[in-house]
Amino acid sequence: MSRITCSDLSSKVVTAEQAAVHISHGDRVAMSGFTGSGYPKAVPGALASQARTEHEDGRDFAIELWTGASTAPELDGALAEADAVSKRLPFQSDPAMRKAINDGSTEYVDTHLSHSAQQAWFGFYGNLDVAVVEVAAILPNGLLVPGSSVGNSKTWLDLADKVILEVNSWHPRAYEGFHDVYYGTRRPPERLPIQLLEPMQRIGDPYLRVDPAKIVAIVETNAPDRNLPFKPADEDSTAIASHLVDFLRHEIRADRLPPELLPLQSGVGNVANAVMGNLAESEFEGLTAYTEVIQDGMLDLIDNGKLASVSATAFSLSAERAADFNENIESYKGRILLRTQEMSNHPEAIRRLGVIAINGMVEADIYGNVNSTHVMGSSIINGIGGSGDFARNAYLNFFVSNSLAKDGAISSVVPFASHIDHTEHDTQILVTEQGLADLRGLSPVARARTIIANCAHPDYRDRLGDYLDRAIAANPHGRHTPHLLGEALSWHGNFQATGRM
Amino acid sequence: MSRITCSDLSSKVVTAEQAAVHISHGDRVAMSGFTGSGYPKAVPGALASQARTEHEDGRDFAIELWTGASTAPELDGALAEADAVSKRLPFQSDPAMRKAINDGSTEYVDTHLSHSAQQAWFGFYGNLDVAVVEVAAILPNGLLVPGSSVGNSKTWLDLADKVILEVNSWHPRAYEGFHDVYYGTRRPPERLPIQLLEPMQRIGDPYLRVDPAKIVAIVETNAPDRNLPFKPADEDSTAIASHLVDFLRHEIRADRLPPELLPLQSGVGNVANAVMGNLAESEFEGLTAYTEVIQDGMLDLIDNGKLASVSATAFSLSAERAADFNENIESYKGRILLRTQEMSNHPEAIRRLGVIAINGMVEADIYGNVNSTHVMGSSIINGIGGSGDFARNAYLNFFVSNSLAKDGAISSVVPFASHIDHTEHDTQILVTEQGLADLRGLSPVARARTIIANCAHPDYRDRLGDYLDRAIAANPHGRHTPHLLGEALSWHGNFQATGRM
Repeated sequence: MSRITCSDLSSKVVTAEQAAVHISHGDRVAMSGFTGSGYPKAVPGALASQARTEHEDGRDFAIELWTGASTAPELDGALAEADAVSKRLPFQSDPAMRKAINDGSTEYVDTHLSHSAQQAWFGFYGNLDVAVVEVAAILPNGLLVPGSSVGNSKTWLDLADKVILEVNSWHPRAYEGFHDVYYGTRRPPERLPIQLLEPMQRIGDPYLRVDPAKIVAIVETNAPDRNLPFKPADEDSTAIASHLVDFLRHEIRADRLPPELLPLQSGVGNVANAVMGNLAESEFEGLTAYTEVIQDGMLDLIDNGKLASVSATAFSLSAERAADFNENIESYKGRILLRTQEMSNHPEAIRRLGVIAINGMVEADIYGNVNSTHVMGSSIINGIGGSGDFARNAYLNFFVSNSLAKDGAISSVVPFASHIDHTEHDTQILVTEQGLADLRGLSPVARARTIIANCAHPDYRDRLGDYLDRAIAANPHGRHTPHLLGEALSWHGNFQATGRM
Repeated sequence: MSRITCSDLSSKVVTAEQAAVHISHGDRVAMSGFTGSGYPKAVPGALASQARTEHEDGRDFAIELWTGASTAPELDGALAEADAVSKRLPFQSDPAMRKAINDGSTEYVDTHLSHSAQQAWFGFYGNLDVAVVEVAAILPNGLLVPGSSVGNSKTWLDLADKVILEVNSWHPRAYEGFHDVYYGTRRPPERLPIQLLEPMQRIGDPYLRVDPAKIVAIVETNAPDRNLPFKPADEDSTAIASHLVDFLRHEIRADRLPPELLPLQSGVGNVANAVMGNLAESEFEGLTAYTEVIQDGMLDLIDNGKLASVSATAFSLSAERAADFNENIESYKGRILLRTQEMSNHPEAIRRLGVIAINGMVEADIYGNVNSTHVMGSSIINGIGGSGDFARNAYLNFFVSNSLAKDGAISSVVPFASHIDHTEHDTQILVTEQGLADLRGLSPVARARTIIANCAHPDYRDRLGDYLDRAIAANPHGRHTPHLLGEALSWHGNFQATGRM
């Protein structure tokens, strides 16, 4: 049965190539997609071909590309490889796009994910020309059933002058009812409280809306989401997860957390999956999650009954797990809700619900400033994503990392972070495989002692302690956050010069 | 007429010295007060004397001191000079306290002001032994009329084991009705939406509550708040204000702001007053403010009819203006509301209302990372205060500074900020007397070009541009945020070595 049951719209079905011609050089184009889920599968490739042809004919062709978050090789990769993106926001993780950004050929605006939709709506990024949004189905009344992500699709459909839809029959038709699209947003001064009291509460519609007059093309596809291979937890991530979950037990004993914890948020990656794995084998019951992304580990935790429900904005599953989910989707109804990223990452919701936030980091300095985004100060890896939205507004926040990188050549605890995404005012608990540093209520020097003793790798511990001691000695009137500024970034300089910090 | 009309409590009136003996070495003591308003005037001095006596007798005596924000010489100053504070949070601006912190003798925990009350309630700082809270009156039913600030007093009264009240008849008795103390706060998972839709909306009670059984002493005083002299706007602050207000006009023309703007927040200081002065002479009408502190300039703006109303948590007035306000307080009723700092600085309220946030900075780096707190990386000045609460959640945020300090020896635009309180993801618009840099929607390198061209002083502009150009050249695969890490902090090193950047 066709996924397009709206007769007025059936006539707009075209090929991806025909759809792509609606996009012109210089356009601002917003596409659906969040961590490799729910991004358009066909039009980006056709657009990349169009760009190559234009370039071969000696004409400029580049767009500004907005999305929910990271997408996949067929979108970010294809357009970056075609040199077709002049500016990118708000998050990416694609190797080709990363290269274009770090080469300086693509501008990248790395905003908080909770800010992207509203700032686009406020007009801070300019007029939006075209939206390209993937959905699972179009209903007879023109309403859209989203697929495996919601992301910024609601805002892109609202703001764009022209809309291209991709209807992807790989997404189960049974996705209908898995989404909660909040249409109560307003621009100040018209904003109202968001009446969300629990992670699974519905406050919006199960469908995306679009003005049919704006739809210029519809493309039918049947193509899977990017499906990253699932890495089983290694020894370090298992150790990190164990420190973290033990600390949650400690907080319950101290009466600072209820026995069923508070809603969990967990960034993407191996450690996040390891934490879920640890919880799956734990005594915890009745857990909930209010998060961005549902990875394999969280789905396992639902399956084994520990996790009662999850609110997120997207899936990010392995190929096996995605196939399994698509087959058994009905059994997850009422236990999974996908929201707009504006709501999944909203400061108001995160603070009210008291989320426990767990996010990865690249490095932390001894005072607890965290770098989530850059290598050696200059090169971007992915972006800040929602880590700032969650860390700032969480009840508890954790930043996690191995204590070493590059076979020990890099310490993830350094004297001074080479880029700062989360400041000392925002970070609460750091965890490495070495241990856990609880920074709450500590002064900078006390934080430094704790981080060095508990989180740094023994190979770097003495040198970090020595830096701190000498910085204290050298700053008799600057002992709040003592630094040796001439040496503060020298560990990174050492790595650049010698290959080792 | 006595300000203590509750007969059950009248018997608890004692001297400050008698009250202070309820505070012991090692206690956590939370006092009222916010930017020099509404802090206890008598007990801190008596406590400082008690500490000196203990020290003279060879005994340890130090407390952990919590407040709303900065206080005054009679509180922070007296206790710091008596070496009586082991730990201080969440904000201070006192010379003696600053010295104790920078000497390493007092630990300082510089938290976001919106986090301090909730984190204390969550138990992150330990048990609160004693609260010392100044009020304007005690009603027959035991309810408390606050004075010139609310700050964290609600939370301190709720959490403390023992309570000492100071009743200060310097505050007009007519303060009754000027306050809105929100008692709807809960700990997660019991939290509810804050039903605040407009800056002046009342969502709480006009009174503070306290369990009378916890009151161990009441002290009567008649003493003025700290009254900082008002500095008339100088040429630079006038120029900054002019750039900023012109930009607001620009945003109205672009349909990104309504003609009456959105609620204003303005940090403490000369530039803030200058902005208010500029608005006072402008075409704007019907302005509102949702801010922390009401300075002279904001009161002037009310008087001349431009500013319809102000929600804040405290006053911070000159002696003349405070005397004038106290005399004419009735005329401000319904136009000024003082809230808890948890509400004045609440992310939920700030984002919903769409606040226009204006805060000072020490320095910004070329990529827009802002240092609000430290000199040369190591020494704290005051603290982050509410600048992060407002900047992160604002509709528009401005960070303002002169482009030079120390007679030109220091540039407020540097290659790499020596401490980062607000990251590139959070800062939108920088303003110096040189001009304004609108960073919204720009990549880091584009931000750098704009900041250098518009905000840096001409004396440093070429060197900043040269740093950027060389950093781009040196990082062929790191051109997102290109840095020369060996040189990034060298401007601060130059200043430390030669007295000039």
